[in-house]
Amino acid sequence: MRNAFAIGLDVGGTRIAAGLVERKGHIVREVKLPTPKEAGPFAIVDSIVGAVGDITNGVHPSEIAGIGIGLPAQIDFMRQSVEYCTNLPLAGIDMRGLVMSRLKYPVTIDNDGHTAALGESRFGAAKGLKDFIMITLGTGVGGGVFIGGKIYRGSRGFGGEVGHMVIVVDGPECPCGGRGHLESFAARPAIVREARAAATTYKGSSITKHAQGDVDNITAETVIKAANSGDKTAVEIMSRVGDMLGESLVGLVNLLNPQAVIVGGGIGESCPLVSERAAACIAAEALAGRRDVRVLIAELGNDAGVAGAAALAFEDRDSREGIH
Amino acid sequence: MRNAFAIGLDVGGTRIAAGLVERKGHIVREVKLPTPKEAGPFAIVDSIVGAVGDITNGVHPSEIAGIGIGLPAQIDFMRQSVEYCTNLPLAGIDMRGLVMSRLKYPVTIDNDGHTAALGESRFGAAKGLKDFIMITLGTGVGGGVFIGGKIYRGSRGFGGEVGHMVIVVDGPECPCGGRGHLESFAARPAIVREARAAATTYKGSSITKHAQGDVDNITAETVIKAANSGDKTAVEIMSRVGDMLGESLVGLVNLLNPQAVIVGGGIGESCPLVSERAAACIAAEALAGRRDVRVLIAELGNDAGVAGAAALAFEDRDSREGIH
Repeated sequence: MRNAFAIGLDVGGTRIAAGLVERKGHIVREVKLPTPKEAGPFAIVDSIVGAVGDITNGVHPSEIAGIGIGLPAQIDFMRQSVEYCTNLPLAGIDMRGLVMSRLKYPVTIDNDGHTAALGESRFGAAKGLKDFIMITLGTGVGGGVFIGGKIYRGSRGFGGEVGHMVIVVDGPECPCGGRGHLESFAARPAIVREARAAATTYKGSSITKHAQGDVDNITAETVIKAANSGDKTAVEIMSRVGDMLGESLVGLVNLLNPQAVIVGGGIGESCPLVSERAAACIAAEALAGRRDVRVLIAELGNDAGVAGAAALAFEDRDSREGIH
Repeated sequence: MRNAFAIGLDVGGTRIAAGLVERKGHIVREVKLPTPKEAGPFAIVDSIVGAVGDITNGVHPSEIAGIGIGLPAQIDFMRQSVEYCTNLPLAGIDMRGLVMSRLKYPVTIDNDGHTAALGESRFGAAKGLKDFIMITLGTGVGGGVFIGGKIYRGSRGFGGEVGHMVIVVDGPECPCGGRGHLESFAARPAIVREARAAATTYKGSSITKHAQGDVDNITAETVIKAANSGDKTAVEIMSRVGDMLGESLVGLVNLLNPQAVIVGGGIGESCPLVSERAAACIAAEALAGRRDVRVLIAELGNDAGVAGAAALAFEDRDSREGIH
């Protein structure tokens, strides 16, 4: 069937995922491979082209609506250019043009927080919602803002950086160079920092046990496992993550008055305590009329990026087909 | 001329301003009167009706496009209902219906931060801008968010509360009941609190002189006068206000990627130091690609509310005339 599939790519700092996705968001085929970040932008393009070749093998080109690519970068969406990219050497590189010249499908690029939010919007926890905030807690804090059923992009396409709002003036340094942003409290490095400090003080905590007795082995996942099994120290650390997320969401909910907040990312999805605490914080502190905003856990997990990038390709293709 | 004028009303906690406004935003006639807040909602409606009578005296009804009313309240804009109102007894009152039944002009109500932002957008500092944030520093901190040339309202119409985002977790209490919001650092009560504390310590400060030697006489205006004439203590206090505004704007600029920020309200417009410090903070701390956002001072002063409410009436009328 014509345009029955789209290709969704989620290009991360360490891993590229490519999926052949049908219109309802089901990922029919998928490949994952390491991102060759040291080898430069052309190697990354080669990897993308190879992955697309693998998953489209035997599919007729007319069945493919196009390619959507989510990048960990600030994208000028109107110009389809990569403006800033911290974790990969892609700033100033014409990713869209390079991939398109090698593959002959229409290509659309976007920020990876936007594509993940689009995925949840079309196929996941935010299905049917017009106004919502997506916030993902992982190695960093990302996400997107949906307004009227569309990703909000701002004047240059950089809108939606929900992880970089100040919640503690002069607070701890954030990887972005600012201070006291949500990312400096609620992403993996902050959790590990807190847990290592706590584990040194409270030897009895099961955090250390989950880390095979070695403080250096502690990861955010170790802490979440311990918290989910009721370890007091770990529960305190993850409660604090939820509280800080909540404080940030109070501001966002007051500002944007959304229907719902979707909490995703590895941390948000594996530790229910985080979104529970955040919801309690909103219920207690948001302005009148906003306290009952729904706080939902994302449903698509790691698939959100691939499914959302494919949704981007479908929608871009459909909107242009309409004109012809 | 048909629909040549609209009536703009700015209903505040202490004062009602009503203006007869022509299409370019010029206020042709204006009356101001105290808000009879103790006498209840019907007395407020009586005052509005009287004021409109005064300014429309001798004008043919066909020349008037309608009435726009800005209220210090949370408005469900689609339903045109007053949902929450802290400073006036208007919650649950059908202000639109009550005024319309007495005056026979179409009436549109909106939050006063939204109408002020609309005024600056159509006739003032934000003319021609599609994406901007308006932030007013006065007795409280209000404002609005413009996206694609329109006020952003959110799912129930409560969007745009720029003064109630957390910037210091567990910070000082905010009049809204929350903690550490911008309003708890950058509105009149916070400035007075800081200045009284400082004036007790630094007897030599010209803040005390401007307040005729009596600490109890200190107002935000006293502090701003002293700061504008270079008094060291006053400059420190107002610099801190600007810095806290800046910290809040870093988050807003990261989130929304606007073309410009308009700083208004009595404090924002009379003390250039505040917006200068805020702009410096954004230039130093915002994410890449956003640091050059323009920070402008509002141009309409107290007229923004009246002119913006009139613009609301014009635009509402014009959009409905188009359908007939």
